[in-house]
Amino acid sequence: MAKILIINGPNLNLLGKRQPEIYGTTTLDQINELCIEEAKKHSLDATFAQSNDEAEIIDLVQSAPGKYNGIVINAAGYTHTSVALMDALLACNLPIVEVHLSNIYKREEFRHKSYVSRAASGIICGFGAESYRLAVAAISNLIKK
Amino acid sequence: MAKILIINGPNLNLLGKRQPEIYGTTTLDQINELCIEEAKKHSLDATFAQSNDEAEIIDLVQSAPGKYNGIVINAAGYTHTSVALMDALLACNLPIVEVHLSNIYKREEFRHKSYVSRAASGIICGFGAESYRLAVAAISNLIKK
Amino acid sequence: MAKILIINGPNLNLLGKRQPEIYGTTTLDQINELCIEEAKKHSLDATFAQSNDEAEIIDLVQSAPGKYNGIVINAAGYTHTSVALMDALLACNLPIVEVHLSNIYKREEFRHKSYVSRAASGIICGFGAESYRLAVAAISNLIKK
Amino acid sequence: MAKILIINGPNLNLLGKRQPEIYGTTTLDQINELCIEEAKKHSLDATFAQSNDEAEIIDLVQSAPGKYNGIVINAAGYTHTSVALMDALLACNLPIVEVHLSNIYKREEFRHKSYVSRAASGIICGFGAESYRLAVAAISNLIKK
Amino acid sequence: MAKILIINGPNLNLLGKRQPEIYGTTTLDQINELCIEEAKKHSLDATFAQSNDEAEIIDLVQSAPGKYNGIVINAAGYTHTSVALMDALLACNLPIVEVHLSNIYKREEFRHKSYVSRAASGIICGFGAESYRLAVAAISNLIKK
Amino acid sequence: MAKILIINGPNLNLLGKRQPEIYGTTTLDQINELCIEEAKKHSLDATFAQSNDEAEIIDLVQSAPGKYNGIVINAAGYTHTSVALMDALLACNLPIVEVHLSNIYKREEFRHKSYVSRAASGIICGFGAESYRLAVAAISNLIKK
Amino acid sequence: MAKILIINGPNLNLLGKRQPEIYGTTTLDQINELCIEEAKKHSLDATFAQSNDEAEIIDLVQSAPGKYNGIVINAAGYTHTSVALMDALLACNLPIVEVHLSNIYKREEFRHKSYVSRAASGIICGFGAESYRLAVAAISNLIKK
Amino acid sequence: MAKILIINGPNLNLLGKRQPEIYGTTTLDQINELCIEEAKKHSLDATFAQSNDEAEIIDLVQSAPGKYNGIVINAAGYTHTSVALMDALLACNLPIVEVHLSNIYKREEFRHKSYVSRAASGIICGFGAESYRLAVAAISNLIKK
Amino acid sequence: MAKILIINGPNLNLLGKRQPEIYGTTTLDQINELCIEEAKKHSLDATFAQSNDEAEIIDLVQSAPGKYNGIVINAAGYTHTSVALMDALLACNLPIVEVHLSNIYKREEFRHKSYVSRAASGIICGFGAESYRLAVAAISNLIKK
Amino acid sequence: MAKILIINGPNLNLLGKRQPEIYGTTTLDQINELCIEEAKKHSLDATFAQSNDEAEIIDLVQSAPGKYNGIVINAAGYTHTSVALMDALLACNLPIVEVHLSNIYKREEFRHKSYVSRAASGIICGFGAESYRLAVAAISNLIKK
Amino acid sequence: MAKILIINGPNLNLLGKRQPEIYGTTTLDQINELCIEEAKKHSLDATFAQSNDEAEIIDLVQSAPGKYNGIVINAAGYTHTSVALMDALLACNLPIVEVHLSNIYKREEFRHKSYVSRAASGIICGFGAESYRLAVAAISNLIKK
Amino acid sequence: MAKILIINGPNLNLLGKRQPEIYGTTTLDQINELCIEEAKKHSLDATFAQSNDEAEIIDLVQSAPGKYNGIVINAAGYTHTSVALMDALLACNLPIVEVHLSNIYKREEFRHKSYVSRAASGIICGFGAESYRLAVAAISNLIKK
Repeated sequence: MAKILIINGPNLNLLGKRQPEIYGTTTLDQINELCIEEAKKHSLDATFAQSNDEAEIIDLVQSAPGKYNGIVINAAGYTHTSVALMDALLACNLPIVEVHLSNIYKREEFRHKSYVSRAASGIICGFGAESYRLAVAAISNLIKK
Repeated sequence: MAKILIINGPNLNLLGKRQPEIYGTTTLDQINELCIEEAKKHSLDATFAQSNDEAEIIDLVQSAPGKYNGIVINAAGYTHTSVALMDALLACNLPIVEVHLSNIYKREEFRHKSYVSRAASGIICGFGAESYRLAVAAISNLIKK
Repeated sequence: MAKILIINGPNLNLLGKRQPEIYGTTTLDQINELCIEEAKKHSLDATFAQSNDEAEIIDLVQSAPGKYNGIVINAAGYTHTSVALMDALLACNLPIVEVHLSNIYKREEFRHKSYVSRAASGIICGFGAESYRLAVAAISNLIKK
Repeated sequence: MAKILIINGPNLNLLGKRQPEIYGTTTLDQINELCIEEAKKHSLDATFAQSNDEAEIIDLVQSAPGKYNGIVINAAGYTHTSVALMDALLACNLPIVEVHLSNIYKREEFRHKSYVSRAASGIICGFGAESYRLAVAAISNLIKK
Repeated sequence: MAKILIINGPNLNLLGKRQPEIYGTTTLDQINELCIEEAKKHSLDATFAQSNDEAEIIDLVQSAPGKYNGIVINAAGYTHTSVALMDALLACNLPIVEVHLSNIYKREEFRHKSYVSRAASGIICGFGAESYRLAVAAISNLIKK
Repeated sequence: MAKILIINGPNLNLLGKRQPEIYGTTTLDQINELCIEEAKKHSLDATFAQSNDEAEIIDLVQSAPGKYNGIVINAAGYTHTSVALMDALLACNLPIVEVHLSNIYKREEFRHKSYVSRAASGIICGFGAESYRLAVAAISNLIKK
Repeated sequence: MAKILIINGPNLNLLGKRQPEIYGTTTLDQINELCIEEAKKHSLDATFAQSNDEAEIIDLVQSAPGKYNGIVINAAGYTHTSVALMDALLACNLPIVEVHLSNIYKREEFRHKSYVSRAASGIICGFGAESYRLAVAAISNLIKK
Repeated sequence: MAKILIINGPNLNLLGKRQPEIYGTTTLDQINELCIEEAKKHSLDATFAQSNDEAEIIDLVQSAPGKYNGIVINAAGYTHTSVALMDALLACNLPIVEVHLSNIYKREEFRHKSYVSRAASGIICGFGAESYRLAVAAISNLIKK
Repeated sequence: MAKILIINGPNLNLLGKRQPEIYGTTTLDQINELCIEEAKKHSLDATFAQSNDEAEIIDLVQSAPGKYNGIVINAAGYTHTSVALMDALLACNLPIVEVHLSNIYKREEFRHKSYVSRAASGIICGFGAESYRLAVAAISNLIKK
Repeated sequence: MAKILIINGPNLNLLGKRQPEIYGTTTLDQINELCIEEAKKHSLDATFAQSNDEAEIIDLVQSAPGKYNGIVINAAGYTHTSVALMDALLACNLPIVEVHLSNIYKREEFRHKSYVSRAASGIICGFGAESYRLAVAAISNLIKK
Repeated sequence: MAKILIINGPNLNLLGKRQPEIYGTTTLDQINELCIEEAKKHSLDATFAQSNDEAEIIDLVQSAPGKYNGIVINAAGYTHTSVALMDALLACNLPIVEVHLSNIYKREEFRHKSYVSRAASGIICGFGAESYRLAVAAISNLIKK
Repeated sequence: MAKILIINGPNLNLLGKRQPEIYGTTTLDQINELCIEEAKKHSLDATFAQSNDEAEIIDLVQSAPGKYNGIVINAAGYTHTSVALMDALLACNLPIVEVHLSNIYKREEFRHKSYVSRAASGIICGFGAESYRLAVAAISNLIKK
């Protein structure tokens, strides 16, 4: 059974608790469940992680090859600033799906630049929690290829 | 039964026939079938259209309200240059999903700017033909909300 | 009796039907009547046209010399993107008045650049449907000179 | 009877005396008369002012509410450089029409940026002295609303 | 006998009729004859087309493979704005020669950027109608290789 | 007893009278009293001035050395545009505190550049009328050093 | 008794030990005492923290609501680079005061951009250790409102 | 006997009194004497003026034609910011010499842009008080032509 | 018999010897022969020169008037950097054809700016050695006019 | 015996394991040995460290003074983004050598900006593992001075 | 008797022979005489040089110290492009006066940047041949100091 | 025995004679000796050259293949401006090491761009004369590979 790692970056632990006008009312735990449910449909085993720490996220990415068959990543604030994370993603030979809850291209100018996009196969953004479900479907398809 | 309109912009009629190294080998007809199949899963009736003509695409978008419940659009080259298309999309009160076969953020600088993104709810790009299947799933979810 | 051509660009056929918070509630037909009424005051014969098609608008401009004594144009989305339209306007030796319903300089950055302004004698924007009435008065004055 | 204030910025006192190739041969006094005449048609009482002094112009704008029902302003050189004037215009709750004799978008790059446009309802430019007549008609319409 | 398609973009139908100070006095028909004459010297069969319509030009380009052995294109205003046309040119596997009557690098800044140049083998500009004759010679040479 | 000069730039005379959503409801007179009160706590004698006139403000700054021991300045619109004021501030050898009612870095892009900041010891902004009280405390501290 | 959290970013632990020409000779411990002293005057209970770790600072900010009534933050180097920290600050519904020892607008260009300013109510910079005392006074005032 | 007007902008009244490291120790009065002396050598009658007020300087320039045969101007801070002053200079048909004490191209970036240079015949900068003597010689030569 | 000067800039002496993937396998001597052959067809006497030295090339250009009737120039690396060469070309009243072997608009960004284009009548690039043959044809045509 | 600290940033632990086409096949352990060997030649005691964590690297730099006589640093992805690391390097009074395996100026644009370069004495890049050996030689020389 | 070196850059040997609308009708020989005449008035011995060769000009500058007491330089096209010349000027400890015939700030944008200005004491431009006479006067004054 | 060519660009002949605060007190002759000494350690035969002439340096580079096994180059001012030199370096198939005495990334903005870096294998800068010794060691290593 193929395994996927779903990585969530800084402040996503607050999901559903603050700023619902931007990020919706679903919590990260609910997204976790939604992902596991969707993963099962695709016969995938999903592991869910969240960290506010750039280095921890890099470590997660570095350790993925061998353990996982694909990565779904919402790098949140680090999306726009972390060359180090991009380098880690580029170095792991796994399919990568970038995901965002909001449509980052409708927000502030500095959120339009994504270092993660340079390393990801594809991008899904703007559908709220549903973005994750689509990302799981997408990574499943990439792994099968 | 909800209805969706899937709009394809300039040169997408060539899909699967030229430049497979960028766009893959699947033809637009095959994507059409794939979309109809996926749409059925979501109890959606999908109509597929392609045009090389900016005005024709604008007309399609303008006529959608009342006839369709949502739009999936791959505006291809017009994505990056058409304010007129963006205005048409902004004026129709339907959920809109932007879709691209390739990851436009890995390509030339001028493909990183999308006028369609300013009007779309969400964006899916980089998964080849699979991008469309995900887009149908996404629009289905948006329509249900 | 002098004749003027009033050209309306993409999406202006939707006027009064969608996004009234930006474009007001007057329909294009009502603006047409308003223009004819104003034209009469200035002993002008006004012809009204609308198209979503860049090429059609270029054709209209190209065919104006000989038939019309002046052009009033609201190029809408093509204002900001069409070098081809600008070239057509520059090539016809008629007085040209650029008109916009909204104050484009209060809107998104990309609407601040107008190729039409490079070809027009003067510009009137921000007065809603009234912009057209002023434009007819302005073209009348230019024709008399 | 509604009252309007027509403000003219630096160097406009030279109108008709120097550089007629850019600004025409009409003097500011003649424009004044033309404005009063036009104002009468709209049952408006027009007051005409000119100053080379940014602070004096700001004072004029600040004192307008209560005395006038609308402002027509050709801020000339201060159009492009005065945040202070823009702030004064934003602070007065009157309809404002920006006017220019020449088409500023056909001139030097630095004349394409207008701080006044951020505070004005609408803009009229490029029609020479006629720009003022149109502006009086426009402000009349704004006041009636 | 090899065949070439010579495509002319928006407003080129006006050649020799307006703005001779920029584009010369030769008409498009005369250029057509000149091209046919030059083509014969190179044993080429030249087909001449003009359109103001971006989509029509894209259609022409798309239909060229199989029918023609090379394309000469003066995209006029679309040169600087059409990603869709560039994509069509990139997708057809024919030799392409970009041609302009005027030296676009001596004109306005926005005419210095050419999307067509990214798809063309070579560029010839600034020689008036003679540019076309040289382009026919050039495409002949490219076809022979 | 040390003396300080508190300078207020253009439109600040309108404080509390217009646009309370940006600048609050406190009037400049109330801020004056608040400053005098705070100054007393620090054994300072505060003089309060307001002008819409760039030159008058420059004169105030030029005349300060010898009469005052420090300057608190809210240059309002001139903050972003006046090199002349910056030069005057640089030329007077007094401690200078820049103050703003609103957080200028949350407002329009052009308000993020401050010429006054290049001449001031420190900056206090975003606290409404309280910004002034803090500025008086700050200048008191600078004078004591 | 209201409580405030004073957060200090990377390298501020070195204060008073290195580069006194930029940051002064006061140590962070002395600033801590100074803050506690000032907090007492305002009946505030101040907690002082320093970290070189972006994630630790984000954690501190995330955990503040419920425990503290306001935040004073000198994010040092992260001020200019951390979107993640900005997002954390935006997500906590507490008053926030940004503080800097030096006048960052007199230093290198890249220090003029502050992500923290987009989340803070107000900013105080350039007064050395005194900046903190003013910040405590400012946050006290914000909490009372 | 030809007459020249020597205009000095904001803060130049402080010359020789403050910041001698940038502007030298010569006072404006001394420069005045130096100019009169130099003017005599060229049989010119020199009038010397200084103002901190942009409008006053514009008035001086506007009133020069008829009274003076040439203008020497050191616009100081207004050099870089005043379109209004530039317009006044462009409107007077006199020879104009721009002068600066310091080499403005060795100073801050924003001092490298001069609106005055667009209106002046020639520029002399960087020679301290001597710049003025050279400027008087230069204007003398221009007047003779 | 009209005479033309064909100037080749730095590193073109290496043609056909190094980097054939960019510049082809034809040597400069072969291009020389090709040019002489083509020149004969047009009854032109062609002189061929190559230099790595900017000054030598400027000298060649300066000495051309009187001796030659036209210049064909491939300035290679100096194309993008030499204002001095552009000034020399502008000062000689001869027809000038700019030529490049490769399509410089498909290469690095800094090769898209050509100072030579500002002085040349027309430009031919991207056809390898054939570019020269076309350039000889083009200069012949320009000389005849 | 002088001591040096060799710091390696994020993802360098993967050296020799992934992306050998960019970073070569040498592992970080092998580079460690190579450094120790080279250090011995210069009578230096080398300590080797690697971390993916920005804060850990800052801590390492902060603790170096007193323990080490010089720092060799390859900050990898943090090179281009970390103001905090630059501040730490600037605050320690040790000689610093910046090192990179690849020639960062031949790679993506965003890798051309190095915050580390603003704090380092010198830079060595592009020689693969050999870059480190040269860096040890360089730091040895700097320490001796 | 003090000695000065007057250096003239590329194409200045053509002065008075071509493009008189920009550079006037005076030849370089006449300027030479004019300089010698002016130099005598100031008891200076002037040596005049012209070269189209960047390296020759650098050599001239390098050899000046010891032989000359000051340099007057019109670097023409190299003004805007030669870092090497700027470095040579910075390295010689002589007073330097930059001179131009035309007002370079009224010409093309790329002529507004001068590397020579970074090394010169002062600048004189826009007075035609008279610029040189003023420059000789200026260098004389600098040498005396 | 392998041979290397060490090329020194403009003004480096002045080393040790002028501006020691930037370039140190070592002369170029001393650096030459230092290089020969270092080369011997690596069994290399080093040839040392200096020229102020861009073309001479290009000639040196062009003639290197066949005679030398590697190039060490300090192009000084030409580093930042010479596309022609870069093209010469790219065309020779030898290992190239770029060297600078100073850390160019700590100096003026325009020195941060190096055309040489695009052609060099690696870069060494900021170590004064020692930079050369390291460069010789580096080229030795590159030649051995």
